[in-house]
Amino acid sequence: MSTEAIATSPAASTAKSVATHPLAPLSAQELTSAASIIKASWPAHTDLHFKVVTLEEPPKAEVLKYLDAEHQKTSLPSISRKAFVNYYIRNTNKFHEAIVDLSTGHVVSNVLLGPFFHANGDGEEIVAIEKAVLQDESVKAEIAKLQLPEGTVVISDPWIYGSDGVNDEERLYQCFLYLRDPMNPGEADSNHYALPLPISPVVSTADNNKVIRIDIMPTGVDNTIKPIGPYKVQPPNEYVSEYQSLRTDLKPLRVVQPEGASFQVTREGTSSILAWQKWKFRVGFNQREGMVLYDVRYDGRPLFYRLSLSDMNIPYADPRHPFHKKSAFDLGDAGAGIMANNLKLGCDCLGSIYYLDAVLSDDKGGVTPMDNVVCIHEQDAGIGWKHTNYRTGRAAVVRSRELVLQSIITVSNYEYILAFIFNQAGEIDYEIRATGILSTQPIDEGIEVPFGTVVHPGVLAVHHQHIFSLRVDPMIDGLDNRVAYEEAHAMPRSEFNPHGTGYFTKETVISESGGYDLDYDKNRTFKIQNANVRNPINGKPVAYKIQAPPFQKILSDKDSFNYKRAEFSDHNIYVVKHRDGELYAGGKYTNQSRGGTGVRSWADRKDNVQDTDLVVYIQAGINHVPRIEDFPVMPCEILKIHMKPVNFFDKNPALDVAPSEQGFNKSVLVSEQHHQPTVEATIDKDGACCGPKL
Amino acid sequence: MSTEAIATSPAASTAKSVATHPLAPLSAQELTSAASIIKASWPAHTDLHFKVVTLEEPPKAEVLKYLDAEHQKTSLPSISRKAFVNYYIRNTNKFHEAIVDLSTGHVVSNVLLGPFFHANGDGEEIVAIEKAVLQDESVKAEIAKLQLPEGTVVISDPWIYGSDGVNDEERLYQCFLYLRDPMNPGEADSNHYALPLPISPVVSTADNNKVIRIDIMPTGVDNTIKPIGPYKVQPPNEYVSEYQSLRTDLKPLRVVQPEGASFQVTREGTSSILAWQKWKFRVGFNQREGMVLYDVRYDGRPLFYRLSLSDMNIPYADPRHPFHKKSAFDLGDAGAGIMANNLKLGCDCLGSIYYLDAVLSDDKGGVTPMDNVVCIHEQDAGIGWKHTNYRTGRAAVVRSRELVLQSIITVSNYEYILAFIFNQAGEIDYEIRATGILSTQPIDEGIEVPFGTVVHPGVLAVHHQHIFSLRVDPMIDGLDNRVAYEEAHAMPRSEFNPHGTGYFTKETVISESGGYDLDYDKNRTFKIQNANVRNPINGKPVAYKIQAPPFQKILSDKDSFNYKRAEFSDHNIYVVKHRDGELYAGGKYTNQSRGGTGVRSWADRKDNVQDTDLVVYIQAGINHVPRIEDFPVMPCEILKIHMKPVNFFDKNPALDVAPSEQGFNKSVLVSEQHHQPTVEATIDKDGACCGPKL
Repeated sequence: MSTEAIATSPAASTAKSVATHPLAPLSAQELTSAASIIKASWPAHTDLHFKVVTLEEPPKAEVLKYLDAEHQKTSLPSISRKAFVNYYIRNTNKFHEAIVDLSTGHVVSNVLLGPFFHANGDGEEIVAIEKAVLQDESVKAEIAKLQLPEGTVVISDPWIYGSDGVNDEERLYQCFLYLRDPMNPGEADSNHYALPLPISPVVSTADNNKVIRIDIMPTGVDNTIKPIGPYKVQPPNEYVSEYQSLRTDLKPLRVVQPEGASFQVTREGTSSILAWQKWKFRVGFNQREGMVLYDVRYDGRPLFYRLSLSDMNIPYADPRHPFHKKSAFDLGDAGAGIMANNLKLGCDCLGSIYYLDAVLSDDKGGVTPMDNVVCIHEQDAGIGWKHTNYRTGRAAVVRSRELVLQSIITVSNYEYILAFIFNQAGEIDYEIRATGILSTQPIDEGIEVPFGTVVHPGVLAVHHQHIFSLRVDPMIDGLDNRVAYEEAHAMPRSEFNPHGTGYFTKETVISESGGYDLDYDKNRTFKIQNANVRNPINGKPVAYKIQAPPFQKILSDKDSFNYKRAEFSDHNIYVVKHRDGELYAGGKYTNQSRGGTGVRSWADRKDNVQDTDLVVYIQAGINHVPRIEDFPVMPCEILKIHMKPVNFFDKNPALDVAPSEQGFNKSVLVSEQHHQPTVEATIDKDGACCGPKL
Repeated sequence: MSTEAIATSPAASTAKSVATHPLAPLSAQELTSAASIIKASWPAHTDLHFKVVTLEEPPKAEVLKYLDAEHQKTSLPSISRKAFVNYYIRNTNKFHEAIVDLSTGHVVSNVLLGPFFHANGDGEEIVAIEKAVLQDESVKAEIAKLQLPEGTVVISDPWIYGSDGVNDEERLYQCFLYLRDPMNPGEADSNHYALPLPISPVVSTADNNKVIRIDIMPTGVDNTIKPIGPYKVQPPNEYVSEYQSLRTDLKPLRVVQPEGASFQVTREGTSSILAWQKWKFRVGFNQREGMVLYDVRYDGRPLFYRLSLSDMNIPYADPRHPFHKKSAFDLGDAGAGIMANNLKLGCDCLGSIYYLDAVLSDDKGGVTPMDNVVCIHEQDAGIGWKHTNYRTGRAAVVRSRELVLQSIITVSNYEYILAFIFNQAGEIDYEIRATGILSTQPIDEGIEVPFGTVVHPGVLAVHHQHIFSLRVDPMIDGLDNRVAYEEAHAMPRSEFNPHGTGYFTKETVISESGGYDLDYDKNRTFKIQNANVRNPINGKPVAYKIQAPPFQKILSDKDSFNYKRAEFSDHNIYVVKHRDGELYAGGKYTNQSRGGTGVRSWADRKDNVQDTDLVVYIQAGINHVPRIEDFPVMPCEILKIHMKPVNFFDKNPALDVAPSEQGFNKSVLVSEQHHQPTVEATIDKDGACCGPKL
């Protein structure tokens, strides 16, 4: 990283000191103010391409003092508001990282980042690249060789270039080309992923999105490249409803809360405080991580300083050029916040819904309003607990109510539905639903390859891994925490265990930062504990345990760029000592990164992590071997990471949930007349929601 | 197994030949008829203790012909109705297994089972044992040493004795004693598990429930037995609502289906046909397995001949006498059918509910009506699939609707909530929720043991494993199926894989019956395939894959009775060739069994299981290391086994689900007034449901 000295300069528009919560996202005014301050530091008319303008979170030590004062209702310390800014001098490779003090209007630092540091993509840029590629004469010449029917529409999907160390110092995009159904070219929502082309232009963003190369794809079983020839038009495979013969026998199911929802939202500027069933926390939202939860407490007891999805990595299995570089970091390379869907009432969430909005930066130093990016609602999760006394026949049963904060992101072809879910038993789930459309490429007819599945005639969906990293910054009853893992082992036979049936658990405390793995054969369970606070009944340290689903670690070998870059992809758990500014498991700049800047590197410091301020990264994943059922759009594949109290309370914390009763639940006995052959379809196909916006 | 020749004899009441479906459970009339036929085979006034009277399912080959005719609407073959009967000569060890032909009224076979074959428990017997123990003078003498407050109520929980090979040839019960809260002895729903006593009487059922021994429990860290002395009365730990300070801030959430439910139930005698969203299957119910699904089809294509929970095993970790024998088989030792709860509208299920009833046998050859043992309802399962076209902004989104068949069983202290769940994407889940009250024992104050958790002063909840076995008898597009497992492996570096990023999948076909295990590091995935039927697009065999959660296999050593008896407990998957009559993974008679009669033994036949009629047993489990949060009643721990189509369809089968639209879903935008501080509690504490039945 080379540095460039830039004198701190006063703000173009005078920034004012506001009594904003230190964890509140930047407001629209702060966003534009930060950009203006940076612009003012350059000669007039310098065209800056802003990549990120976001809150620079204050040091944790400062925030903690603020939170203490906030909870104790004493006078609040003053913490300066700072913005973190990434920008280019437009159409150059001059990529900068700056910190702006919004309270004083000064640039605190402004650094030109060195080689191998590249910014995330942004929407405006993607559209510009699409256009540049399709207008390029060399690309047109290749497309002409396909001899497509007149009127056929070609679509270009720019892809993050990835890293292979081969002439990839500059910031590039690898574009994948597809067709809309040639028989129906006016359909803007045609599923072009069903009609992939073997032509892949490469674009240099520092060179005004110039096409620097056109890659021709291998389409057989090996890496032979065939010259482009006439394209055999295959049938389409559409996902939008007007091309389906829809089911008509599904009757409406509605979630009704006649007295409203049970949660309270208190809006404080750009963040909101959510209170529900003894839970209380602050919700933020930023360009990169989307939803962030801060200061999560249960019944006043601190649990987590910060919870967020840290990053995800999606490496693909096809080792052939140019596919070998397909390995996206959807947060670092794009951003879960900026890609968040505007959620629609009655479509994305069912029941009584509250929406949160956000404001993010745009590429010109302005503001992108992000409406309805988080939906909040309650859901019934079945029975919470039950016991029937067989002697008296009395059944004690409570239902489990959950609070859901959901955000949905679209990353080009693919969707992730991300949710934090809280329940009444003191548990938090992080749920990931993977859906959307598979990334496809052409394949010759009649062949099979062991690294992908044919999902449509001529269409290969390559195997790929999704590896997610959830960042958990705990404060279980205080800051000094430790991670321990418990295992269950068979007892050896002895006088104490004469029949060979005994087993026992033992706990191992993690003292050094590092990557650690689950071992299901030992029932290995990780817990975040506070050894200074003991359960009043059994004396065990208060703790939250982590239940994460199994996943296959990254398959790319240890010398590959894929492995080096995806620093979180090789272990179920990383435990590191907290350091301000370390938030992203794959490193701060993942686009065309080289590794060495993420959680594996932090763990290599071998810090003490016992009874101190630590951070846990929990990984989960899918090795997605496509089924034909995943096309043209895939049914959700669901992953859940659970965090559950272990000896944190003194009994079942949901014991005080009122019994499940008909007077409250108003269930309905289905009578026979409801079971006659279905009446005519009751679905309103002209509903306001979800229709084409052409 | 010794045999006893009994002449087949005519029915006492003439059985009539009825046109009943061959898979329909026995009707009330058939149950009593079968018992009468057996009674008539004995001298008058012989007192028989019936343990099980249930349908003897006809040979699969015969049923398949019937199902073919049924689906093709051709004339139905005649299949005789048979009953399977287990009984004792009351108060003896003479345990019989008989088959009765109800169509002819004849006893087909009637066998006295030899040593080490013991029947399941039954409700009448359990109550009789409780009484016998508490009236026993030697037990009273031990209790007297505790010097309990006047009026204290002692409770006896009879437990399945288990096997250790030490004087355990006879059928015995190990009883655990507890107290109701001595300060509140009139509370019949007091949680006696919070007040365990160290006295454990042993009862012989063949000897009129005589107490043959009183075991005194070790209560320290080792196996020292201390003489019984004065009992220190500890505080109670109640779970029923009147002892809680209930939350009052939860507002109602109702599931409303204004046009009724989307499923159709056709009742055919004692079984029902369920049709929902292209699914169709028959529901049966029996004493041992509870819910059984037969002839499961999707869009007319056969998928499963039979689905049921086969058994479960719960071995405990404490190796000390008498706890070392605690290893229950809740289906084989008791029965998921006979223990099923009568489900209450508005308590156990939310929404529009349809109930199924059943009739089971009683101990005297009569009938036990089992009302509302299965509840059927639909539920919303969040988003089913979604894609947003970022170019047009059009979001295509469908919600996922599920059909749930739920049954809840109470096994003394513990509850299991068992459900088959179907969705619109051709997927079936089997969901297990473990809840209820931990089995407890006394522990001296101030000590810890590595095989249990102190959950209340003086109360130890010992670690234990729950190992479930789901029996899957497939017919994926026909009977000749195979099981294959797919693994993902890194490609070695080569000219084809120059950057070390490639990986591939390979499939291994299981040719021989046996136990097989998951390997998450290889992403090993088991699929049930039909190699004779190929996907029309990609030529792959049609298949359903199994996604089962990880679990630690049984920890008891291989020479232990626990291991030998729990024949399904050591592998994730067992694959065996189908044989009529082999239904129970732990063997037909699990109570005090010795092993050698379950799935491990069947697998040892090393049958060919490739492209033939096979059966798969899928295991799932929990190593339950109790948390204090699991007491006095535990929040549900949820396990799910998924079965999903893999190249069975030619595209996403849920593509034809209508888009999620507000006109259909009627969600509500939560307005600010709903977020004011909560109003007074709206929960009706006097609701008809769930109150004490004293």
